[in-house]
Amino acid sequence: MSDPIDFWFDFSSPYGYLMSERIDELAARFGRKVRWHPVLLGVVFKATGSAPLTLQSPAKAAYSLLDFARSARFMGIPYRHPTRFPLATQNAARAYYWLHSQDCALARRFAHAAFRALYVDDRDIAAPEVVLEIAADLGVDRSSLEAALQSQEIKDRLKAEVDNALAIGVFGSPHVMIDGEAFFGADRLPQIEKWLEAGGF
Amino acid sequence: MSDPIDFWFDFSSPYGYLMSERIDELAARFGRKVRWHPVLLGVVFKATGSAPLTLQSPAKAAYSLLDFARSARFMGIPYRHPTRFPLATQNAARAYYWLHSQDCALARRFAHAAFRALYVDDRDIAAPEVVLEIAADLGVDRSSLEAALQSQEIKDRLKAEVDNALAIGVFGSPHVMIDGEAFFGADRLPQIEKWLEAGGF
Repeated sequence: MSDPIDFWFDFSSPYGYLMSERIDELAARFGRKVRWHPVLLGVVFKATGSAPLTLQSPAKAAYSLLDFARSARFMGIPYRHPTRFPLATQNAARAYYWLHSQDCALARRFAHAAFRALYVDDRDIAAPEVVLEIAADLGVDRSSLEAALQSQEIKDRLKAEVDNALAIGVFGSPHVMIDGEAFFGADRLPQIEKWLEAGGF
Repeated sequence: MSDPIDFWFDFSSPYGYLMSERIDELAARFGRKVRWHPVLLGVVFKATGSAPLTLQSPAKAAYSLLDFARSARFMGIPYRHPTRFPLATQNAARAYYWLHSQDCALARRFAHAAFRALYVDDRDIAAPEVVLEIAADLGVDRSSLEAALQSQEIKDRLKAEVDNALAIGVFGSPHVMIDGEAFFGADRLPQIEKWLEAGGF
């Protein structure tokens, strides 16, 4: 069994969402597992001097909106650009890590549900109550999660994940690492596939 | 016969080079011609508040160097990262437009030769004498081109092309436009192919 693949993303990243809909299935075809790492792009961009695509120049912002939706159609993934964008995702990320500490598979289901809530159903996943609802729909105890979202342990876990991502060289979302090789962007999926198939190229 | 495709690039853009090696052939499969527009990314970046990838954060710069070479291998295109990078390309761009005013096909051969001089043979295409040599190898009269590189008419033509690119929404290289639809990046070639095949998607 080969080493797991690492996948860093922010829940507010459209290309992170597109990657989230494909990476597990692709990895599984090559006998690989994927470790998911939600991070906060706001912190990453502050450290690297970058900014969200839609807050860059008007030309780049307009193109990005077009490309999010077109790339989703190209990949056959439902996409509706959220009314609130970009938005804060620390509650979704904290929920992920708390769930993961108890049940990896449940955390994965939550991550998919949170992404789809934002990019299919246009829900405001910045709001703690929306995150709690999404988790409750998966059978999670609402009051336990509500407490966890404010716990120092979970805040520290998320901070440690962001620090680690920066140390590894993550500068945006999605960022995938396979045996030390970095791939940035959902549009690198064909290269990832070839890399997994051939063990590098 | 459908409308031609437009292709904006800077001779110092690695992904522009990758696109230049594929776009004509792809377009031809769908009965399309391509109009090439060398521009100056320095001017574009100044107008849009951006910067070359290798002059952004250390993490993004390091990844970009890796991705230029890997994307070239993925596409089966020879690539050696130039010793001088990024570099000024107004001489190459001016030479292109002067040649184009006389012989479109010759201008195209020059553009390929200039890109390959930089990305295969590591030649300093910023230098006027290197541009003159590349053109002379294609049978171009050296002294006529030398004069053209300093002519106001050719300087004005390049400036008009850059202004037009900015007006159209070009913010980087390569930028391809098909029937009003924009595609940014060599990694959008699969989407371009599908678009040409299906007339949009």
